[in-house]
Amino acid sequence: MPNPIEFFFDFSSPYGYFASTRICALAAKHGRTVVWRPILLGAVFKVTGGAPLPSLPLKGDYSVRDMTRSARYHDIPYKMPSVFPVPTQAPARIVYWVEGTTPDRVEAVVLALYRAYFVEDQDISKPETAAHAVAKIGLDPVQALAATNDASIKERLKNETQAAIERGVFGSPYVTVDGEPFWGMDRFDQVERWLARGGF
Amino acid sequence: MPNPIEFFFDFSSPYGYFASTRICALAAKHGRTVVWRPILLGAVFKVTGGAPLPSLPLKGDYSVRDMTRSARYHDIPYKMPSVFPVPTQAPARIVYWVEGTTPDRVEAVVLALYRAYFVEDQDISKPETAAHAVAKIGLDPVQALAATNDASIKERLKNETQAAIERGVFGSPYVTVDGEPFWGMDRFDQVERWLARGGF
Repeated sequence: MPNPIEFFFDFSSPYGYFASTRICALAAKHGRTVVWRPILLGAVFKVTGGAPLPSLPLKGDYSVRDMTRSARYHDIPYKMPSVFPVPTQAPARIVYWVEGTTPDRVEAVVLALYRAYFVEDQDISKPETAAHAVAKIGLDPVQALAATNDASIKERLKNETQAAIERGVFGSPYVTVDGEPFWGMDRFDQVERWLARGGF
Repeated sequence: MPNPIEFFFDFSSPYGYFASTRICALAAKHGRTVVWRPILLGAVFKVTGGAPLPSLPLKGDYSVRDMTRSARYHDIPYKMPSVFPVPTQAPARIVYWVEGTTPDRVEAVVLALYRAYFVEDQDISKPETAAHAVAKIGLDPVQALAATNDASIKERLKNETQAAIERGVFGSPYVTVDGEPFWGMDRFDQVERWLARGGF
């Protein structure tokens, strides 16, 4: 079995959302699967000195414009959320819970949570809202809600974020193919060639 | 006449170099010309809080890897310079001198200076080295050297950098098409569609 593609992302990242809609098709085309790794960019930024894009002088204004334009360019439904960015512990914990219980639903859960935030403008930082979003695709909202407050899942998210930082992850989306790192959906052309040729 | 494409860049920017090798063909394909606008990213970073890529935790290591890989991907000759980044007043001033004297040589001059730095590992921050690089394509090295120390050209570079900041330029390359800004060579697919359709 070839290695899966690791997809690191934060639920508050528009570019992570855009890329999440494309990564599975890209992986499947080359016989790969995807391992979804939600992390907390806030913890990453403490190490890197980074900051949420909209807060940056000049680059912030550009980014907001680029997000909307990039969504149009790639024909991806997108609405800048009213509250942005938001803390993303709740949706990230739900993903790790699903991974441990019904792993074949992880992709659908990631897409449902991202859609709730970036299309339907629902504040998925609230555990109830995140649980409601996955209930719409058939998961148990009571269990989902419980997962957002589960000690071992909290620990898991913390560990995954720390492990990602130790491996050099500094942004979202951040993809690795057989150990080779690619940052941003705008590197998917390079990801594709790497998958096709095993490097270049 | 359609508006020219404005191409803002710093001579110490690998991604600016990569993009410089492609922007003219892209512009010409859509009946446009290019206005070359060398600026000083150091002055920009004072406003934005930005910093040279290699100095950033995690992102720095990735960037160095991405630069080399992106050059291979786009089939552009590239060698990480021994000294990087460098101050870029000298090459930038030479460009503004050429613009005022033999404007049809500007593109060739930009490419020659970039090539000296990112292919031949010559430290173009030194006025003599920058002048030598443009002498190789037929410009007068004595006049080029004088331009790097010319008061009005110094002022021009300062003013262009300030004007760029006021217009929101925060990185390199940064391209505008009819006022629409695009940051990075990885937005050239969007630039192309914008040129073809007049927006999207």
